[in-house]
Amino acid sequence: MILPGSYVRDLLKSAPGTAVTARGWVKTRRDGKNVHFIQLNDGSSPTDLQVVVDEGLVPAEVIAHITTGACLSVKGELVASPGKGQAVELKAQSLEVHGAASPEDYPLQKKKHNLETLRPLGHLRGRTNTFGAVFRVRNVLARAIHKFFQDRGFLYIHTPVISSSDAEGAGSMFQVTGLDLEGLHKAPDFGQDFFGRRTFLTVSGQLEAEILALAFANVYTFGPTFRAENSNTPRHLAEFYMIEPEMAFCDLNDDQDLAEAFLKSLVEQVIAECRPDLEFLSKWYEPDLFKSLEGVLAGGFERISYTEAIHLLQKSGRNWEFPTDWGSDLQSEHERYLTEELIKKPVIVTNYPKQIKAFYMRGNDDGKTVAAMDVLVPHIGEIIGGSQREERHDVLQSRIREHAAMGMKEESYWWYLELRKFGGVEHAGFGMGFERMMMYLTGMKNIRDVIPFPRTPGNAEF
Amino acid sequence: MILPGSYVRDLLKSAPGTAVTARGWVKTRRDGKNVHFIQLNDGSSPTDLQVVVDEGLVPAEVIAHITTGACLSVKGELVASPGKGQAVELKAQSLEVHGAASPEDYPLQKKKHNLETLRPLGHLRGRTNTFGAVFRVRNVLARAIHKFFQDRGFLYIHTPVISSSDAEGAGSMFQVTGLDLEGLHKAPDFGQDFFGRRTFLTVSGQLEAEILALAFANVYTFGPTFRAENSNTPRHLAEFYMIEPEMAFCDLNDDQDLAEAFLKSLVEQVIAECRPDLEFLSKWYEPDLFKSLEGVLAGGFERISYTEAIHLLQKSGRNWEFPTDWGSDLQSEHERYLTEELIKKPVIVTNYPKQIKAFYMRGNDDGKTVAAMDVLVPHIGEIIGGSQREERHDVLQSRIREHAAMGMKEESYWWYLELRKFGGVEHAGFGMGFERMMMYLTGMKNIRDVIPFPRTPGNAEF
Repeated sequence: MILPGSYVRDLLKSAPGTAVTARGWVKTRRDGKNVHFIQLNDGSSPTDLQVVVDEGLVPAEVIAHITTGACLSVKGELVASPGKGQAVELKAQSLEVHGAASPEDYPLQKKKHNLETLRPLGHLRGRTNTFGAVFRVRNVLARAIHKFFQDRGFLYIHTPVISSSDAEGAGSMFQVTGLDLEGLHKAPDFGQDFFGRRTFLTVSGQLEAEILALAFANVYTFGPTFRAENSNTPRHLAEFYMIEPEMAFCDLNDDQDLAEAFLKSLVEQVIAECRPDLEFLSKWYEPDLFKSLEGVLAGGFERISYTEAIHLLQKSGRNWEFPTDWGSDLQSEHERYLTEELIKKPVIVTNYPKQIKAFYMRGNDDGKTVAAMDVLVPHIGEIIGGSQREERHDVLQSRIREHAAMGMKEESYWWYLELRKFGGVEHAGFGMGFERMMMYLTGMKNIRDVIPFPRTPGNAEF
Repeated sequence: MILPGSYVRDLLKSAPGTAVTARGWVKTRRDGKNVHFIQLNDGSSPTDLQVVVDEGLVPAEVIAHITTGACLSVKGELVASPGKGQAVELKAQSLEVHGAASPEDYPLQKKKHNLETLRPLGHLRGRTNTFGAVFRVRNVLARAIHKFFQDRGFLYIHTPVISSSDAEGAGSMFQVTGLDLEGLHKAPDFGQDFFGRRTFLTVSGQLEAEILALAFANVYTFGPTFRAENSNTPRHLAEFYMIEPEMAFCDLNDDQDLAEAFLKSLVEQVIAECRPDLEFLSKWYEPDLFKSLEGVLAGGFERISYTEAIHLLQKSGRNWEFPTDWGSDLQSEHERYLTEELIKKPVIVTNYPKQIKAFYMRGNDDGKTVAAMDVLVPHIGEIIGGSQREERHDVLQSRIREHAAMGMKEESYWWYLELRKFGGVEHAGFGMGFERMMMYLTGMKNIRDVIPFPRTPGNAEF
């Protein structure tokens, strides 16, 4: 197997004269006079390793198998490269073709492929330059997220994927069942189902994260969440990843500070570790990528209240598609105007009307708003949503009862209410969609292109 | 919120004379003459911080609220502690009770609770000493896993939770559906379901991990997997976490080397970072814990073939409950005999009969065995299972066809077969159950006690 020091990324930085074995897949082969040039990559680098094979080193029928997509091992010596864009190249001394890729059949020939064309090729698209860059960024982003929280003493926790709480209304959740659906001919008895009740795929780990925040003070989740909405847009997935920190002894101000520090840290770490990949992505997909990312790092995020935001929208002179009267939710057009055009940097909007926010958000003293926050960034709009949580038992209970008409059952929230009876304290948290952040960092325009195996209506092939 | 340097863990290591604010939950309060002693913890440490409150600092009715489970902030100065087991204690200068926990109602009073009694208290058990230790180890283990692979250049990947492949036979998988089951009056038409087909909760990310190993060489997953088997044992969960590395250019020997290095690294990192927690767990739950863990580090793992293992079992002189003739699968009694009693250290058993192993395992030249491996450790038995994968297109296709009678459909594996047509190479990987490893590291005897919110038949409350 490839050990550290032997990835293509490492070989490209090694000194001429080093004896090495390179392994990977052929990007292209070009035949010169008495010599063959092979671009080889193992997925570790946006730059290929050039392998030089003298005519006659291997039989012509072996050379014929070295086509785009073939898998090789090459032993040889690194030598200074006369070509541009690489310090060294590999002069082959021996070569083995592990697996060919017939040019008649292999779908990824040398050319720029349309991203939509590549989506049905989920088993191969990871070998392209674009998805190489995207999935390397994905790895670094995941690591950066863990590092940020671990450095701050947060405990990484796993909240359940299979959930019995129907947190956001039945329509948008997948059901999970152990019943034999094919044998069903009437509505099932969920009491006979695996868990003795109806169960769903979670839409958020927040409520369970609150349990552990009230035991370990600072915790975070990083796991899959699900939506069963039939949304065929470039921004929706049925299965995606969320990061949800939850902090005891924390109010909305601390929450905003943490969200800002978090975003800055992620952008900083990804730029530091993935600059060549981001340069590639910027070149092909988003010329403003670095400008946008550096904007996050440039200074403090603007912080305005929802009420101020509404005033700004009303006096903008724009014709909005959606209403901007106090009490209406901010839509994408509003969010992007605020962050991209008016304020031109990340904006945190706080204290939204309670009618448009979730039951668990802490009521403000004005009786009309809740201690919510949304972080908006240029090109994307909302990238983080959070709030201080209602820690007052009686207030929370009233809120749940107000929602009874929408199907919320107080008895299902017995443990959530008990957290407010036993050692409760002000606490807050937020959620960030991992793929939304990936779109921001890579400049990719369709969320299906930032996750290896996207789940959308009608799509679950790979 | 609590920032690094202010966790109880940090305060316990700070110098006398430091002015600090401590936050956390009360473990116990003890009243002396003119003084109150509070054991306070924020979940960061197996040792509580002792807070000393002079009589009269706060009114008696405030003191009355400082009972087990109450949430406090205390400002004061660290002073050298006259007591044993702590260098410093906190002399309170002011104190705030955020949330009380009525002694009549709060279920976690000062005493050792039976673990079974705590299970229905999933919203509170994280505050006990035992679960504090267990979930801190869980966090460190997760971090150690990422560190091991990231240090070796492996790419962290997310394979899908919602899967359309019925990988191990229908009986053991949960179904996922967006259909309105309550409105059903006949068998559902899965063509009308969200994904246009039947979908399940994944039992393994391996097949998809192979896709990415053939693009990025070395990858790993770390995510939730599911089994719908109605198993009410201390070793089974319906929802648990798996780590699945997959490596191109890798044979069964490399695979064994990696698995051994992996286990050793995890044990080493967890001992280094969690010694006080492990000492606590060893004291209460498993006296042999350190002996067992240090056994993993002591030397090389024994490596024997399945055929040798069968010989050893046959000549053991034992009366086995399950058969030990060649071709029978090794059972827990056999595995534990080999690793605990006979060889007395971790053992890797390789090259199992192909009939008892999965279709994708690489056939050996003897025509009877496949390049599989199981890693066995004392007290647990199998902790890792892996194999080299069949990379030969025609051999794999035959294997799939042999399984047609068991419901395997060749057309569902079109992409898995194509991986063997386009740049295939020998590759291998393994899977480790995260909670199985947690049991090994903590000495806990029931898998429900090493995950915050266990999912088992009839249980999905939290």
